[in-house]
Amino acid sequence: MSSVGATDDVERRARMVLSRVCEPGDVDACHLIREYSAAALLTRLRAGGTGARKARDWAERLPTVDLDASLRAAEQAAARYLMPGDPEWPRPLDDLHVLEGEVGERRGGAPFGLWVRGGGDLGALAARAVSVVGARASTAYGERAAGDLAYGMADSGFTVISGGAYGIDAAAHRGALANRKPTIAILAGGIDRVYPAGNSDLLRHITEAGAVVSEAPPGCVPSKSRFLVRNRLIAAISLGTVVVEAALRSGSLNTARWARDLGRHVMGVPGPVTSTLSAGVHQLLRQPETVLVTDAAEVVEQLSPVGTGLAPAKTGPIRAADSLDARSKQLLDAVPKCTGASTRSIAAVAGLRHDDVVKRLPEMERIGVVVCKSGRWRLA
Amino acid sequence: MSSVGATDDVERRARMVLSRVCEPGDVDACHLIREYSAAALLTRLRAGGTGARKARDWAERLPTVDLDASLRAAEQAAARYLMPGDPEWPRPLDDLHVLEGEVGERRGGAPFGLWVRGGGDLGALAARAVSVVGARASTAYGERAAGDLAYGMADSGFTVISGGAYGIDAAAHRGALANRKPTIAILAGGIDRVYPAGNSDLLRHITEAGAVVSEAPPGCVPSKSRFLVRNRLIAAISLGTVVVEAALRSGSLNTARWARDLGRHVMGVPGPVTSTLSAGVHQLLRQPETVLVTDAAEVVEQLSPVGTGLAPAKTGPIRAADSLDARSKQLLDAVPKCTGASTRSIAAVAGLRHDDVVKRLPEMERIGVVVCKSGRWRLA
Repeated sequence: MSSVGATDDVERRARMVLSRVCEPGDVDACHLIREYSAAALLTRLRAGGTGARKARDWAERLPTVDLDASLRAAEQAAARYLMPGDPEWPRPLDDLHVLEGEVGERRGGAPFGLWVRGGGDLGALAARAVSVVGARASTAYGERAAGDLAYGMADSGFTVISGGAYGIDAAAHRGALANRKPTIAILAGGIDRVYPAGNSDLLRHITEAGAVVSEAPPGCVPSKSRFLVRNRLIAAISLGTVVVEAALRSGSLNTARWARDLGRHVMGVPGPVTSTLSAGVHQLLRQPETVLVTDAAEVVEQLSPVGTGLAPAKTGPIRAADSLDARSKQLLDAVPKCTGASTRSIAAVAGLRHDDVVKRLPEMERIGVVVCKSGRWRLA
Repeated sequence: MSSVGATDDVERRARMVLSRVCEPGDVDACHLIREYSAAALLTRLRAGGTGARKARDWAERLPTVDLDASLRAAEQAAARYLMPGDPEWPRPLDDLHVLEGEVGERRGGAPFGLWVRGGGDLGALAARAVSVVGARASTAYGERAAGDLAYGMADSGFTVISGGAYGIDAAAHRGALANRKPTIAILAGGIDRVYPAGNSDLLRHITEAGAVVSEAPPGCVPSKSRFLVRNRLIAAISLGTVVVEAALRSGSLNTARWARDLGRHVMGVPGPVTSTLSAGVHQLLRQPETVLVTDAAEVVEQLSPVGTGLAPAKTGPIRAADSLDARSKQLLDAVPKCTGASTRSIAAVAGLRHDDVVKRLPEMERIGVVVCKSGRWRLA
């Protein structure tokens, strides 16, 4: 038991060190960690090589890593470190392994580990999660849509995941918090950096009610490329991603692509076609795998097993005349609104036989759609 | 030749008479007309029967038909009558035969004929047509979207079809007319009735520039059930139907269903999820066969043979940095905006090897994304 603990600790520390020399999600590093374990990879790097083409870069940076400083910063931020296999580890993130086979420059591997602030059990919180993401420079319309959606999803027992940014992200977190439900912010920078600074109160509330998470080591600057890599965690940890407002080049569309590649549900909330902030969402909605959603019930339906969690049908107002058959509807069309008419006149206008009209009108009076006064009929 | 003409004339008059005793699109009537010809069906009705269960109704109404009055009303309205097979007959309407097999109360048959006002050749006008339909009680947003769409579709050589109603219909017709292109209004009431009266100027302009069409006989009142049956003509005559604004029970959704059942393209223009006038469109867009469109180019793409008429890709602004590979983008992220930084400092922030950074920065200077002053680099 204690020897397992010691090995565990060596592996854990090795992952923390590697996260300072490799970029998050680096596919080659992920391959090597699975091949050797992080501890063994680190030993090999220290010994001067692994054969990987990037190993020179990593080895060159090893001497600059001050793990103790990292640990102190994390402690000060009350952050803990999780690695795959830990009881609290969010299992959906393991699906990221499927992207490691991707060719090219894409960095899509599983995280080495996660820094976490907040008292909840991350694995339990993420067990039934939905991501709500969108533009930073959002409109009041988008913020309202994101907030309503998050509030409703929280009501249905989903943990709302977002990126802790201004705009749609903040509105989504706030929607869940307004419902006194946990929410998770996954950041691109170090767990000890409050970014953006203007969201410091919000991030504190998220920590209290749910969790703030990052795979980047403490102190790490949230650069643009790290935002894009961070997005894969938002996509992977949840059952589906909803994009609320996004311009044509929005990073939220990148999150949606990760979700699609991971086989997660991709959803979008439409907006006016005249809004550049909806243009990216509309582009997404033109792809066959994306589902248009207008409220939380429709998102729940999408994320539930087929045939369950169905959104109530949107039918508009129900009218008494709905129950009539086609011929009675045709007859109803011919009944005047104000001044009454004779059955002969109604039959002529409706194009129906007189005896048929005489038979149908009293039935229609019973369900309250027509009335008869002194032998003349009009609409009720 | 003259005997063909005479037969033709008998058939034509029989169709006009039948349109006064059967409701438009009555599937049984369509079946019988194809089995016997309209002339033969009429002869049988006059002789007292055909075996069809509705024949009693029709026969009962025959004595009331005043065909000469119909012809006079049509002449006064400068309307001509077309029947299937006429050179000017819009061939796409023949596809309605496929719906005649449908069970139940649905009336989906081919029209007996069409009354037409306007100088253009209806078949030629309808050869490349798109329908743009939507709510009567539309918003300024919807009218703008419909008008822009129609203007753009007219630009691409499509004839815009709609129902001549207030709101979206009117905006669509106006969009085409504003582009000095023909448009077709298909009415639910008789061709001699200007309905709605408030659109009388618009309907006159449509007649002058294109055509106003109805299958209903002159004098016929546009009742609710006739609107629903009329919708099948709008759906059938065009390659695709675009719904712009529609509440949950809008008749436009009925047009979209006809279009779907006929194998035509079904498209919808989204709007705010907070707008009840977009709720019906959003419901439609949640069905897999419906395509979200935001402008005319996307409609043209949808209606063009696969691989042609492609809408220009919506990419947002193109930036010089787009051409960089992933590592150079990562490097670019680390270059400061205002005050310059040394290559060593940039390498440390970027997490890249120093010699790599030294090699890449001058290349990036050449494409104008970074500048160097006194050995210190910053963004251009």
